[in-house]
Amino acid sequence: MAHALRLARRGLGNVWPNPAVGCVLLREGRVVGRGWTQPGGRPHAERMALDAAGSLARGATAYVTLEPCAHHGRTPPCASGMVQAGVTRVVTALTDPDPRVAGRGHAMLRAAGVALTEGVMAAQASELQAGFLLRITQGRPFVTLKLASSLDGRIAMASGESRWITGPAARAHVHALRAQHDAIMVGGATARADLPQLNVRGINTPLQPVRIVVSDQALPALAPQGPDHGPLWRVSGEPARIMADLAGRGITRVFCEGGGRLAASLLVAGLVDQLIGYTAGLALGAEARPFLGPTGWTHLAEAPRFALAETRAIGPDLFHRWRRV
Amino acid sequence: MAHALRLARRGLGNVWPNPAVGCVLLREGRVVGRGWTQPGGRPHAERMALDAAGSLARGATAYVTLEPCAHHGRTPPCASGMVQAGVTRVVTALTDPDPRVAGRGHAMLRAAGVALTEGVMAAQASELQAGFLLRITQGRPFVTLKLASSLDGRIAMASGESRWITGPAARAHVHALRAQHDAIMVGGATARADLPQLNVRGINTPLQPVRIVVSDQALPALAPQGPDHGPLWRVSGEPARIMADLAGRGITRVFCEGGGRLAASLLVAGLVDQLIGYTAGLALGAEARPFLGPTGWTHLAEAPRFALAETRAIGPDLFHRWRRV
Ligand SMILES: NC(=O)c1ccc[n+]([C@@H]2O[C@H](COP(=O)([O-])OP(=O)(O)OC[C@H]3O[C@@H](n4cnc5c(N)ncnc54)[C@H](OP(=O)(O)O)[C@@H]3O)[C@@H](O)[C@H]2O)c1
Ligand SMILES: NC(=O)c1ccc[n+]([C@@H]2O[C@H](COP(=O)([O-])OP(=O)(O)OC[C@H]3O[C@@H](n4cnc5c(N)ncnc54)[C@H](OP(=O)(O)O)[C@@H]3O)[C@@H](O)[C@H]2O)c1
Repeated sequence: MAHALRLARRGLGNVWPNPAVGCVLLREGRVVGRGWTQPGGRPHAERMALDAAGSLARGATAYVTLEPCAHHGRTPPCASGMVQAGVTRVVTALTDPDPRVAGRGHAMLRAAGVALTEGVMAAQASELQAGFLLRITQGRPFVTLKLASSLDGRIAMASGESRWITGPAARAHVHALRAQHDAIMVGGATARADLPQLNVRGINTPLQPVRIVVSDQALPALAPQGPDHGPLWRVSGEPARIMADLAGRGITRVFCEGGGRLAASLLVAGLVDQLIGYTAGLALGAEARPFLGPTGWTHLAEAPRFALAETRAIGPDLFHRWRRV
Repeated sequence: MAHALRLARRGLGNVWPNPAVGCVLLREGRVVGRGWTQPGGRPHAERMALDAAGSLARGATAYVTLEPCAHHGRTPPCASGMVQAGVTRVVTALTDPDPRVAGRGHAMLRAAGVALTEGVMAAQASELQAGFLLRITQGRPFVTLKLASSLDGRIAMASGESRWITGPAARAHVHALRAQHDAIMVGGATARADLPQLNVRGINTPLQPVRIVVSDQALPALAPQGPDHGPLWRVSGEPARIMADLAGRGITRVFCEGGGRLAASLLVAGLVDQLIGYTAGLALGAEARPFLGPTGWTHLAEAPRFALAETRAIGPDLFHRWRRV
């Protein structure tokens, strides 16, 4: 299952509205097929693994990070695909909460006499597939907020000077993270001030993320959609409504890169699931621009708490990742 | 030498104005004596190790983190002590820049026919003994600035509410760090607002740090000096002059705990050697109080850069340590 989860990770950011699933077929202790959800969401991981295994799938055990689908879409359901291929045992991490599946995939397998084990590495699978699960169960995407700043939480001098606070390694890391999200979100003021590219550069990605600008105003002249730039969406309104709208359009993972007012509004609305910090080894002082706008909070208890998930050096900068408690 | 450096560390914070030295005596592959500078600065590490070894010092090799002293003080010089004890080989990390030693210890050993190896693990020894070295060579102590804050660099709400931003494990860690410094420094406003204890609590320490308040005003009613509180010194003036004064009084390691104006003045004066951050997993917003006051800098290039030396979780908080580049 750990192997299947590693495969699943490859799909993050390029399979929406589908979940990023991984599948490993094992026969007599040998891997005979591996699959992961392909860019755009199809083929599914199970289909890819079955095709790779061919006749070797007969008698194999399948490890899948999510319950195989049970509904006929453009292709036959994966659960019946497994039965037809002769898979005799299936191990899954999670039940698919999608109402079109919701246990029916598991039931289909059981009914066909396939031995079924559920719930293996469920916590890790929930973490990895959090975006899809939130979209289905709560009607909103998983939201990561990026904070790149000085040690005292500043993103620019009072004059606006801000080039190279964090280093090239951190910036490259940001591109890898962008590639794992379905969409990149910025506030209207950032879009107008920086005319940002909001794309993945320096690494290959099968699908550029959707560019989302939160604004009531007309969009500034950003690059048109093309091979290097995803669709450009303008959204506005209450943060919770915006997120519901995005989930409705299939988005499962949003990477918010600021500015400070948008970031504050997401935090205040309780919509931030993960914080990613890149902290440079310098402090700028109280005149410099903060990365977070006003929250309106007057008591410490109002601020949501996050738990440290990871910390390490990336180039000269401090990387730290936090998950909502 | 690594063993001797670990022993030396025990002296940090309680041997000023002397250096925290470590000494290991090895004979035929066996440790026959270990020593480290004792609280108050005497006995020296070498004396302690020689006393522990007794007659087993004859023919032994001594590993010492600093050149043995050559001057007659209250006790005979360590270099001649080694010769008298019959030590036949000495390995040192650094030359002692103290003008009363400055190579004379090494010379004394060589003249007596002792085999001498210098410069072993010199970088690590310089790092550990930085406070003493700076005091002797630049006439100022090593300064650590502590930053305990939210993810956005805030230490309190606008109202002043600030209890428990960081957790008990981080606070206990602060006490361990205080114990490794000769003095704790705060600004006058912090002294008046918080009436802080500025002592080491919860762990044993042979010597409470000196309490230093930077202020032009009369001191507020802080605890009198006693078994639980070090001497209380009021200092004022230019930061560089203050530090020179403290070095003159023997202080080698200063731990500055704020507030924001004092911290900014030390950074601006280029006097901060090490930054220690404790970051809690919450962000408070732009209205909350920043931990760093105004620096007056208008360009990024004015801010001194620090290199990340260490990062890990301490309880729920992020610990990060930076050294001046
Ligand atoms: N160095 C960095 O890492 C970094 C990263 C990001 C931004 N920045 C800088 O930050 C500055 C902009 O930040 P900012 O805080 O002023 O603005 P911002 O957060 O980028 O944008 C705020 C704007 O977003 C729109 N908006 C609509 N609905 C919103 C909602 N629910 N919550 C919040 N905003 C909503 C409004 O725009 P409309 O008026 O268009 O309706 C609002 O004026 C720029 O100078 C940019 O360069 C720096
Ligand atoms: N939560 C925390 O971690 C934490 C830590 C520390 C402080 N604090 C809070 O911070 C607040 C105080 O911070 P602050 O920034 O206002 O003041 P501060 O830095 O504590 O003190 C500034 C004062 O220091 C004196 N001073 C003398 N020479 C100075 C020099 N070279 N540079 C700077 N100051 C010099 C002046 O005091 P005189 O007027 O006496 O001459 C000046 O008014 C308090 O509310 C305190 O509770 C919180």
